[in-house]
Amino acid sequence: MEEQIPYPAHRPGSPVRSGIPEHGRVPKYYAVKAQVADLLDELGEGGGLPTERDLAERYEVSRETVRQALRELLLEGRLRRSGRGTVVAGPKLEQPLSLASYTEGVRRQGRRPGRRLIGLERFPCPPELARGIGAEAGEPVWHLERVLLADDERVGLESTYVRVSRAPRLDIDFQPDSSFYGYLRDHLGIAFGDADEKLETVLATPREALLIGTPPALPMLLIHRFSRDQDGRPLERVRSLYRGDRFSFTTRLRPE
Amino acid sequence: MEEQIPYPAHRPGSPVRSGIPEHGRVPKYYAVKAQVADLLDELGEGGGLPTERDLAERYEVSRETVRQALRELLLEGRLRRSGRGTVVAGPKLEQPLSLASYTEGVRRQGRRPGRRLIGLERFPCPPELARGIGAEAGEPVWHLERVLLADDERVGLESTYVRVSRAPRLDIDFQPDSSFYGYLRDHLGIAFGDADEKLETVLATPREALLIGTPPALPMLLIHRFSRDQDGRPLERVRSLYRGDRFSFTTRLRPE
Repeated sequence: MEEQIPYPAHRPGSPVRSGIPEHGRVPKYYAVKAQVADLLDELGEGGGLPTERDLAERYEVSRETVRQALRELLLEGRLRRSGRGTVVAGPKLEQPLSLASYTEGVRRQGRRPGRRLIGLERFPCPPELARGIGAEAGEPVWHLERVLLADDERVGLESTYVRVSRAPRLDIDFQPDSSFYGYLRDHLGIAFGDADEKLETVLATPREALLIGTPPALPMLLIHRFSRDQDGRPLERVRSLYRGDRFSFTTRLRPE
Repeated sequence: MEEQIPYPAHRPGSPVRSGIPEHGRVPKYYAVKAQVADLLDELGEGGGLPTERDLAERYEVSRETVRQALRELLLEGRLRRSGRGTVVAGPKLEQPLSLASYTEGVRRQGRRPGRRLIGLERFPCPPELARGIGAEAGEPVWHLERVLLADDERVGLESTYVRVSRAPRLDIDFQPDSSFYGYLRDHLGIAFGDADEKLETVLATPREALLIGTPPALPMLLIHRFSRDQDGRPLERVRSLYRGDRFSFTTRLRPE
């Protein structure tokens, strides 16, 4: 309050004086990143980025400095690889935090949802999983693992755990590229009551990076879900991993 | 469904076969990371990590490989710097997504919340900010920027934008280390109606990293909030940045 710092023009939502540490020096790579970010605005979605060499010449910095700037813009989803080149990425998908399925959420944004089966396995329930899905330790549970797609782009990885007794024919009459929630509703008459979710950011593991097709160590958004059915009984545990450069999540908060 | 992969013992919530790409090779750094993660479980919260040299000898890998493993464990919040050493970090704070303030959320977890003023400035409202806070472009708005603390540890950075006409004496009778929501309620009789939030993961900028005291390029959780008062009028826009290694967010979902 004592000090009045002149307020620079900025876009709301963007960090204030974002590049400038208090001691006033802007790291060189960050200055380049800010200039490239402006360039991306000019180029527009899908526009092709000049080569590293061109950018290094334009900003009179080393190619390593350009690479560091581009790496951050890639991790943040401002850029994306396309074939052999790098282009300006579109805005992140905004997925509502809701009991609606992934399928519905993506469809509402005018994108085409899809899912690709990685595996459907039954195994004896480990003790740590039992309580969350209302199972006895050792009883058979399903693990359904699928890659999430939006317009054929791989954007996430979803693991669902549910008791075999809740969905005994999952391996027979469930279409693995369809909505599991639709299956529960239409085949089994199971509706959702409520769910607890926890969101955090994690790094993709090597296997996840390979399955989703992301650079290793890309920041991801991980959502843990424990859901209950309309009678309040534990139903499923879901571990959903979304590309942090492609997804944001929205919610409407109301007084408690 | 065709192939039955033997299901390994795992902890629910942890990635399945996390280190193993489909071609079966585990990157060396990742194997070390998994072993160090087990070691952290044995050491327990606050336990001191052996030196890089010791770990390199123990796992028979180069120090560079150890460094890569430790870097990821630091970014993910499994480890934290403490004085000159590195120790096992505690669990992430679980902050509810709710209209309750940061202060209340942290207190509910038995931690001591705090805020440190970076700046309180008034400036003419830029057009992009106007609609979200119900202002005319050019009218005076406040920007309140504070570092968020939990038990004196810096864990986030919060920028609040509100029309000066909503809180004309903010620079005079607001204690900048107290709850802004408490101030609105107690001094101005303003209650919250609802709010729209958007969550995403971003990288800390150099300035943010300096203010929060994090390694540069640490993945952060960014929450954009637009809130309305009890009469449905736009009230404030908040940009809250939380350390991704220290925070997770929780919510309860109900049918729409």
